[in-house]
Parts: sequence; C-alpha cells; structure tokens
Amino acid sequence: MSSTFLDTLDTPAAIVDLDRVEWNLQRVATYAREHGLRWRPHTKTHKTAELGAMQVAAGATGVTVATLLEAEVMASVSDDVLLAYPPVGARKLARLMALPPRVRLTVALDSHDVLEGLARAARDAGRTVGVLVEVDLGMRRVGLRTPEEAVALARAAASTPGVAFRGVTFYAGHIRVPQAELPTAMNAQSEALATFVGALSHAGLPPEVVSGGSTPTLWQSHTVKGLTEIRPGLNALNDRNAAVIGACDWTECAYSVLATVVSTAVPGQVVIDAGAKALVKEEGLAPGYGVLLDRPEVVVKNLSEEHGLLDVSGTTWRPRIGERVRVVPNHVCVSVPQHPRLYVLRGDTHVATWEVAARGW
Amino acid sequence: MSSTFLDTLDTPAAIVDLDRVEWNLQRVATYAREHGLRWRPHTKTHKTAELGAMQVAAGATGVTVATLLEAEVMASVSDDVLLAYPPVGARKLARLMALPPRVRLTVALDSHDVLEGLARAARDAGRTVGVLVEVDLGMRRVGLRTPEEAVALARAAASTPGVAFRGVTFYAGHIRVPQAELPTAMNAQSEALATFVGALSHAGLPPEVVSGGSTPTLWQSHTVKGLTEIRPGLNALNDRNAAVIGACDWTECAYSVLATVVSTAVPGQVVIDAGAKALVKEEGLAPGYGVLLDRPEVVVKNLSEEHGLLDVSGTTWRPRIGERVRVVPNHVCVSVPQHPRLYVLRGDTHVATWEVAARGW
Repeated sequence: MSSTFLDTLDTPAAIVDLDRVEWNLQRVATYAREHGLRWRPHTKTHKTAELGAMQVAAGATGVTVATLLEAEVMASVSDDVLLAYPPVGARKLARLMALPPRVRLTVALDSHDVLEGLARAARDAGRTVGVLVEVDLGMRRVGLRTPEEAVALARAAASTPGVAFRGVTFYAGHIRVPQAELPTAMNAQSEALATFVGALSHAGLPPEVVSGGSTPTLWQSHTVKGLTEIRPGLNALNDRNAAVIGACDWTECAYSVLATVVSTAVPGQVVIDAGAKALVKEEGLAPGYGVLLDRPEVVVKNLSEEHGLLDVSGTTWRPRIGERVRVVPNHVCVSVPQHPRLYVLRGDTHVATWEVAARGW
Repeated sequence: MSSTFLDTLDTPAAIVDLDRVEWNLQRVATYAREHGLRWRPHTKTHKTAELGAMQVAAGATGVTVATLLEAEVMASVSDDVLLAYPPVGARKLARLMALPPRVRLTVALDSHDVLEGLARAARDAGRTVGVLVEVDLGMRRVGLRTPEEAVALARAAASTPGVAFRGVTFYAGHIRVPQAELPTAMNAQSEALATFVGALSHAGLPPEVVSGGSTPTLWQSHTVKGLTEIRPGLNALNDRNAAVIGACDWTECAYSVLATVVSTAVPGQVVIDAGAKALVKEEGLAPGYGVLLDRPEVVVKNLSEEHGLLDVSGTTWRPRIGERVRVVPNHVCVSVPQHPRLYVLRGDTHVATWEVAARGW
C-alpha cells in the first residue's frame, strides 16, 4: 500500500472506504425508490452518527436501532426512530422516553408484557409510541408464530392509550441462500407474511407498515407482497459473508481492519496483529474468519486474541515483517464495535474519523 | 436474584464476583510460591488497572501484556512489564519507550527484524530492554521452531546494545485436554523445551527466565522441567471453557454477563438481551456459547447481535419477561472488552466499578 496516512496509523485500526459507502447507500436508496419501498436502515452495523446522517441524507425515511444507546446516538441525526427490540425494564423505558420529543418513536415487540410496560411509560411521559407487532416467518428467534396471536397483540396495541398500532415487522435472517435460490425462499416468505397481514386486515387492523428485509434478501425485497419498508443494515459497509452469499460485490466491501505483519516464523503462515479482539472469531459462510481486501485468496485461517493467522500456502506472496494488510472480516457488525473509532478514507486520503459512539449499551 | 443493585443495572452488564477473584488469585499465588515459580499474570483477560493491582498485591512479580494500551494501563500498577507480543512499527516502539523509566521492560519476540527495531528504539531512548526469545512448542502460531534459530536470535540479543537477553518464552495454548490426560502432554512439552534450553546453555546463553504456562495447563506447570515463570491470564476470572476442561471449578467462575429476558414467544426457548455483542459468538469446548451461572444446565444455544437464545427444553424453568439471569460465556477474554466497565460485587453488594481501561489498542 502506498498511502501515507495508513502508514502512520497504529494497528489494528478500522478503516472505512467512503466512496464505497456512498455507492452502497445510493444503490439501496435507488432500489427502494424504484420499488416504492421505504428505506429505514438498521444502524447497528456502524453505530456512528455520521454514517446515520449520510443514510438520512441519501433518502432514508428514518432509522432502525437495536439498543437504547443506538437510539440516543441516532436521535441526533434522525427524527424517526424504530427500536427493533423490545424495551424491558424501567431503565430502558426511561431512556426511551427521554429521547427528544421531536423524534417519532416506533417499537417492535412480541408480547403483552412489553406492550403494557411501554404504554404505561409513554402515558407517564405524555407521548404516543407507535407499535409494530413482531411476527416470526421462520427465523425462530423472536416474533409471534400464529396470526391469532398477532391479531390479539395488535388489538391490544390499538386499544391501549399511550401506544398506537402501526403495523407488523419481521426479520427473515434464516434465509441465507445463494442469490439464484432466493426467489423460492422469497415466495415462501411472501405466503407466510400474507397469512398475518390477511388476518390483521380481516380483524379490522390493516397494517399501515409492513417492515422487513435482511441483507441477504435485500435485492429481492420487492417480490415480498405487501412489504412497505426495508431495514437493511449490513449493506452500508458489507463484509465477507455478504460477498460470499452474493448480496454484494467484492468491490462494495467498504470496511476493513488495517493490520501489521508481526511474525513469519511458522512456514506457510503469516501472523498479523489483528486477532479475535479486532475481527471477532465468528464462524462465517466460508472457512476462516476473513480475507485480505487486496488479496482475497489469502484467508485468515485462525484467530487468537491478538494474532491473525494468514494462510499463505496457496500464494507466492511472502510479506515482510512490518508490511501492512487490510482484512475484510466475516461479519462487519460485530467487528465495528471492537474499535473506538473508524478512520474514513476517500481513496488514500484521510477525510474523517468517526467515533463508534453507540458501542456498548 | 434478590440483589437490589443488580435489579437497578441496565442490561447487558458485565459482573465480577470479588470473593471469587480473590480466591482465584490466592490459589494461583499459593501454587506458584509452593513450586518456586514466579507468577506474571497476563492482564489481557481483564484489561483493568484495578485487577492488575490486586494481582501485584497478591504476589505477582510483574505483569504480562499483549498490547501497548495494556502496557500503558498496567504500568500504572506494576514496575515490571512483559510485552508478550512483538512490537512492530514506529508508533508502537515510541509508545513502548514512553513508558515510565521506573518500569523494567521485557519483550518477547521471534525475529531479527523485531529485535533490531526494538534495540534501535531502546538506544535512542537511553533504555535497556530485556528480550525473551519466543520458541514454538507445538502451537504453530509464533515462535522459532528450531534450537539453532533460537540460539542465533539469543546471541544477537546478547550482543546488541539497547537490549539484554533474558531467556525464552513459549505459549502452549494447543494443549487442551482434560486434566487426567495432562501429564502426558506436559512430558512432551518438557522434552521440547529442554532441547531449546539445552542448546542455549551449550552456546553459553543459559536462560535466566523460562516463561510459559497457559490456563488449561496451569496446575501442572511445576512438572515442566526448567520453568521459572508462569503467565496465566484467564484464571483470574475463569469461564465456561476453563470449567469444561477442568482448569477451574464452576464456583471459581468470577465473571458473568447480567441479562434480561425479553421474549418467550418461541416455545422451548427464552431470549435474553445479551447477544454476540455482549458475550461473543466464539465456538468453545462444549456446544453453545455460554451457560447460566445459577443454572448451568441452561445453554445459550445461539446468538444474534443483541439476542441470546437460551435452550430451556431440558428444564422446567420458565422465566417471565423481565426476569434477570447471569451468563458465563465460553471465553471471558473476548467478552470483557465488549463492555466499557465491570461492575464488581461482593456477594450482592456493589463495591466498585472498574473501567475496562485497556479495551481497544
């Protein structure tokens, strides 16, 4: 690498390619506009106010968050926040209600317990909070399993002061198939969703919002009948998993971890100073824990806490100690919060440093 | 749980049981003293000045660190720091030399490149830095593979101004067997080590320090012939992996993540708000990603970023939304730096809050 700025950075360091981010945002904004979908990006991927602001400027109709800290940070750049996570407990409800009054709040939930706590807190705060009933289309994580349960919770939301029923939400994160196999999976998703939407409409509670989408299914979102909103998060930065599954091109990977070669003592292997504490040792959709941005044939075959082990057995590349590389990790969303800040480059030029303001809770 | 303090904490939150920490430190300090070994705990596990200070007070003869930030934090509580990681690059060398002059510095390294850079920086700073030659006893991560290489590097260290050859170091992290099978593995380790120590002594460079040890092999360290120093890190807090392999008792697990039940919508499963961003989705020595501290039969079967999925199919326990649990993760060393601070309890009483000061780099 010839970049003077990267040479001066201490490693490991998280790097964002701003040209690629802008491209990624334009691509999804255009897609959403062309298909009449609202785009409410999930900001858990980047946890930075700056990238949230870019998403809003690029046409996002609001943002999605998973934690109260993300809500607090993103409320500084958006007036429309969806908390896609049930707020449980007095502390979280107090923090939610303390968000600026200008912020239109919506909460996704799947239980009467959470609904009641939220409504009580909203009434005490003199707010009205929108509610999306979370339904399960096969992920088996959270969400109601039957249309009857969804109707009952929607009816409760519609009749409880302090909250307003706005629609349904789901996350089909279980769909992880190559792009060619997606249409079949999307059809099944459409049918499962239709039973919920149909039951709600039949009960006099037609959902104004039908919010879904995940990064692997992103570009087929328009085939989900009745969908009004998508919440992709990962596609702002992308990662190795997204590239492996075909949800992005390799040139759309906008996040990498800069690392330094520290040992070449073991033959066939090169050790860098980005380990599990910088990349995260999370299994992905291909063997290993990441690949080099500029040499995707070089795989991070193992990670210790501060050691990344590059397999160089299949390449003639033999770096010297001190040489620098950039690693695209399997999963960007868990790598970002390992870092206190993101160094933002346009080409080789450092243009900004973003604090990962929403790391932690 | 009846603790008022834990009830007031927002979740997820990292909890340290101080009684257990004190027990763990006394146990290892006693073991080291009884076997004539110096105890230089690796502080990468906790990354807090407070626990580092407790280790020094309990008899540690110095501390071990992996990063420059850990070195900077631990230099505030110890006058004797081993950087068990090769410092590569001007930034890291400058930070190393900027540590207070009262701090006796030692560095582990496995290459002439790193030795030369270190010696130059030390001379420029008017310091003398000790060197441990890192050798590989089978881990295949870093370290020299042959006695000839080790002798050559030790000779260079002994003859280069700015550095002083102090001995050898190794990390046998590849030995992960039940305690009953350890003696055989330790014998092999002793023999491999002896070839290096023998070659160095024969070359007129007998190592003053022979530094080794890992948590799984900790309590058999005295069987490694010639060992002078142990560097266990994890045993200060312990985790599920350590308990599974028998390196600690379950009652010696001093770290847990407090979480709140947020959904029970999917039958046979309970969802808590400690996910991959609080516990880390790292494969361990048993299926799943952690277990409950008070109900070790309940396994965290999967993690999303902010969701922990508890398998309750094998228990009659059915918690309500809002109930709190404490999770012992597979690997404490990667969970700790997810958290900005550790809440320290004695019994149910909050006695301190420790900043995870060395998170990041």
